[in-house]
Amino acid sequence: MAASAPISKMIYVGPFVHSRSLTELEIGENGAIGVDENGIIRFVERDFHEGFEKLMAYVEENKDEWVHAKVVKIEGNGFFFPGFIDTHVHAPQHPNTGLFGKTTLLDWLKKYTFPMESSFSSLPRAHRVYQNFVSRTLSHGTTTCSYFATIHVPATNALADICLKRGQRAFVGRVCMNSDLSPEYYRDESVESSVRDSKASIDYIRSIDPNGEIVKPIVTPRFSPSCTPDCLSAMGKLAQETDTHIQTHISENKGEIALVQELFPSSKSYADVYDTHGLLTPKTILAHAVHLSPQERKIILARKSKISHCPASNTAITSGCAPIRELLNEGHTIGLGTDISGGFHPSILENVRQAIWVSRHLAITTNDSAKLSTEEALYLATRGGAAVVGLEEKVGGFEVGKEWDAQMIQLGEVKQEGNEDGIFEEGPVDVFGWESWAERVEKWVYSGDDRNTVAVWVRGRLVHNTSRYTGAEGTAAP
Amino acid sequence: MAASAPISKMIYVGPFVHSRSLTELEIGENGAIGVDENGIIRFVERDFHEGFEKLMAYVEENKDEWVHAKVVKIEGNGFFFPGFIDTHVHAPQHPNTGLFGKTTLLDWLKKYTFPMESSFSSLPRAHRVYQNFVSRTLSHGTTTCSYFATIHVPATNALADICLKRGQRAFVGRVCMNSDLSPEYYRDESVESSVRDSKASIDYIRSIDPNGEIVKPIVTPRFSPSCTPDCLSAMGKLAQETDTHIQTHISENKGEIALVQELFPSSKSYADVYDTHGLLTPKTILAHAVHLSPQERKIILARKSKISHCPASNTAITSGCAPIRELLNEGHTIGLGTDISGGFHPSILENVRQAIWVSRHLAITTNDSAKLSTEEALYLATRGGAAVVGLEEKVGGFEVGKEWDAQMIQLGEVKQEGNEDGIFEEGPVDVFGWESWAERVEKWVYSGDDRNTVAVWVRGRLVHNTSRYTGAEGTAAP
Repeated sequence: MAASAPISKMIYVGPFVHSRSLTELEIGENGAIGVDENGIIRFVERDFHEGFEKLMAYVEENKDEWVHAKVVKIEGNGFFFPGFIDTHVHAPQHPNTGLFGKTTLLDWLKKYTFPMESSFSSLPRAHRVYQNFVSRTLSHGTTTCSYFATIHVPATNALADICLKRGQRAFVGRVCMNSDLSPEYYRDESVESSVRDSKASIDYIRSIDPNGEIVKPIVTPRFSPSCTPDCLSAMGKLAQETDTHIQTHISENKGEIALVQELFPSSKSYADVYDTHGLLTPKTILAHAVHLSPQERKIILARKSKISHCPASNTAITSGCAPIRELLNEGHTIGLGTDISGGFHPSILENVRQAIWVSRHLAITTNDSAKLSTEEALYLATRGGAAVVGLEEKVGGFEVGKEWDAQMIQLGEVKQEGNEDGIFEEGPVDVFGWESWAERVEKWVYSGDDRNTVAVWVRGRLVHNTSRYTGAEGTAAP
Repeated sequence: MAASAPISKMIYVGPFVHSRSLTELEIGENGAIGVDENGIIRFVERDFHEGFEKLMAYVEENKDEWVHAKVVKIEGNGFFFPGFIDTHVHAPQHPNTGLFGKTTLLDWLKKYTFPMESSFSSLPRAHRVYQNFVSRTLSHGTTTCSYFATIHVPATNALADICLKRGQRAFVGRVCMNSDLSPEYYRDESVESSVRDSKASIDYIRSIDPNGEIVKPIVTPRFSPSCTPDCLSAMGKLAQETDTHIQTHISENKGEIALVQELFPSSKSYADVYDTHGLLTPKTILAHAVHLSPQERKIILARKSKISHCPASNTAITSGCAPIRELLNEGHTIGLGTDISGGFHPSILENVRQAIWVSRHLAITTNDSAKLSTEEALYLATRGGAAVVGLEEKVGGFEVGKEWDAQMIQLGEVKQEGNEDGIFEEGPVDVFGWESWAERVEKWVYSGDDRNTVAVWVRGRLVHNTSRYTGAEGTAAP
């Protein structure tokens, strides 16, 4: 299987940037990171000064076993950064990206989402869209995704196959939805068929990646209104029996919250619906969490369930502003989600910016403490997301023992004459040369895009690169 | 001079899209637009079906004089769209794009802006930054800019030279600022020197483009707190005497408004400061207008002054949400501004999105009617901006008699196999083939970027193109 094909020992030489804590970035200007044949980081040097000969001498002196490693060097303006983690994304909605018109959540589902998802009964369509979308998310530096698929088992399994083949870490969930909120043409027939189909997809995904090194199944009840109470309970039971992650939506939009109250009159709250059906677990990812009550936040915290913040989506379909500062202060575990296609962009970097904008809009209407800093938003996109999907020991930063899920960022360099020809092959970020490293990172965050992500690795395997990536050069000792 | 070099008669064949009104886009799926040697649109056909032979026959039958015109055809997924108009942008702040940290307006000026702008006493620096920035804005499809430069006459004149040479329509303003709000190292010495230097730059710009076909001067008092009362009056007088446009800032941030009240205690309001100093004219562009009182809005409307909405900037530096729906309802003339580097992106397309997001945040906190539609935001970016800079008879849409300021947009096409290689040379927009034309336009608006702007024309002259632009082919009758 391609994802487990052998790789060489590698040394990544150049600046690296990652979160030291929620509020602090570490910028190792002269880094060297050694990654072994299993994609595991074995050493992280911070004071290594670039230069091939120095590297050889260093390696011989310090790490005999690395003498034959290959070397990937940053040339020019660039740095290594942890791969992004998208904690909430609907892969089949990719063709609807940017289409939402004047709708909000519930009419948007009916107008755009259900018709598109139902077409994934066609396996060729599923293959075309998923192949394209996995390429897109990888190109934006996303090394881990928690995917909602559709209700169809073959199409869901095809998405898992593609992620495994391409080497993108993924949670892949067959969507469960059996209530009559969904149109007759697109819903599970019965509770029994919901369980059977979800189980079938779990089994398939575990058969192709038994240790869950790249792809894992995830139990995916769409959201409360899409499922009958007995179906929610059955999903809770299935997740428990199979020891599987769970993902769903919560408290995205006020109309939705009213609907949940109407459909589940005996429940104390939206969160209580999930809690009383066995769906609030430490392995549960709750997307949105825009309008939670204090009581709901307490129960989510007590159950150790996780929150996926989807700022681009919440703005685009006018759902509201999730109070991330308050949730962080209370101790919630939070990552970012693109929520394609409620969200309008498959990039987590765009959602880093959007998280910052949403926090500024909260600051405008409430108080200044709502503002998220650049550092905080980058933390949510990496270590925060890793914790949301339960991979905080494996990915999200560069430490010995973690796996090499990383992107190589390259910025542009403004010529002395100032690009008179108007061609910007190096992408959208202009570096003049006098910027500090912290400023280079900020320029990337606020004006960068996929052109700046020139190479992407998952577990040490190169899974995406642009023509600007020059590849591994020689070995430490040729 | 390059900007006035002769061009051929041209026929632009393919779909075109422009605003019919504030709320309505016209999509001419089978368009043919004839542009003469002066860059003037001479015919606009809506039902022309593509094909070179048909074009020749059509031309022979209908427009003898066009038989020898060259033809530019849209191939694949694309359309012609009017060039964008950036009604408020600080060219010297380009190197600070994306750098604002945790600041708001007044501390941001001191920390980032004044040190950068003062360095434009160096002409080589000015040349490098301005050359780069004009290339950037052209690459984003911006055909007209209203530029703030710095206080330096030589650097300001260099910006005008570059715009003229590159063919970008521009208003270029030497910044006037003589009060002690600005640091001693970066301000005008006296009212006399303010007037003398502003006048020198006006004279220079009128000497290089006597009819103002491409570049025009604009009187630019930075904002009330930057100028003493007598300096503001002198600028009002200078604009009147020289019949020049005026640009400045108004009511961006609450701290700024309080400062204006403190500095101009006898004035009724921020708008009143400008009005009583002769600066509120039909040729005045007021940037931001976030927190105007009803009285201020009335006086601005009565004076027929124009408003530049800078949504990305207002969000990034937490200024607030300009109530564009209300201002439109009252009859104000409004365009979009990137406000580099308060704004974090030189693209008006990004600011189309940001205008929509800001309006959604207003909808979240006030009511749904605040929302701007895609059509409305595109109108602000084109016809709205044209009216703000007084060019509504010349640019902003495709009608006979207007000048050909346009961009060719090309979208991407998803292969049947779904881009398995992960290379997206056609840019960020994925078209699957089943989308309506309105949906293609929406996909461009919400996920497009400069990669989709493959060619740009001003007054019929090609001023930017990427490698995807294949150029003019043959002539209508070879």
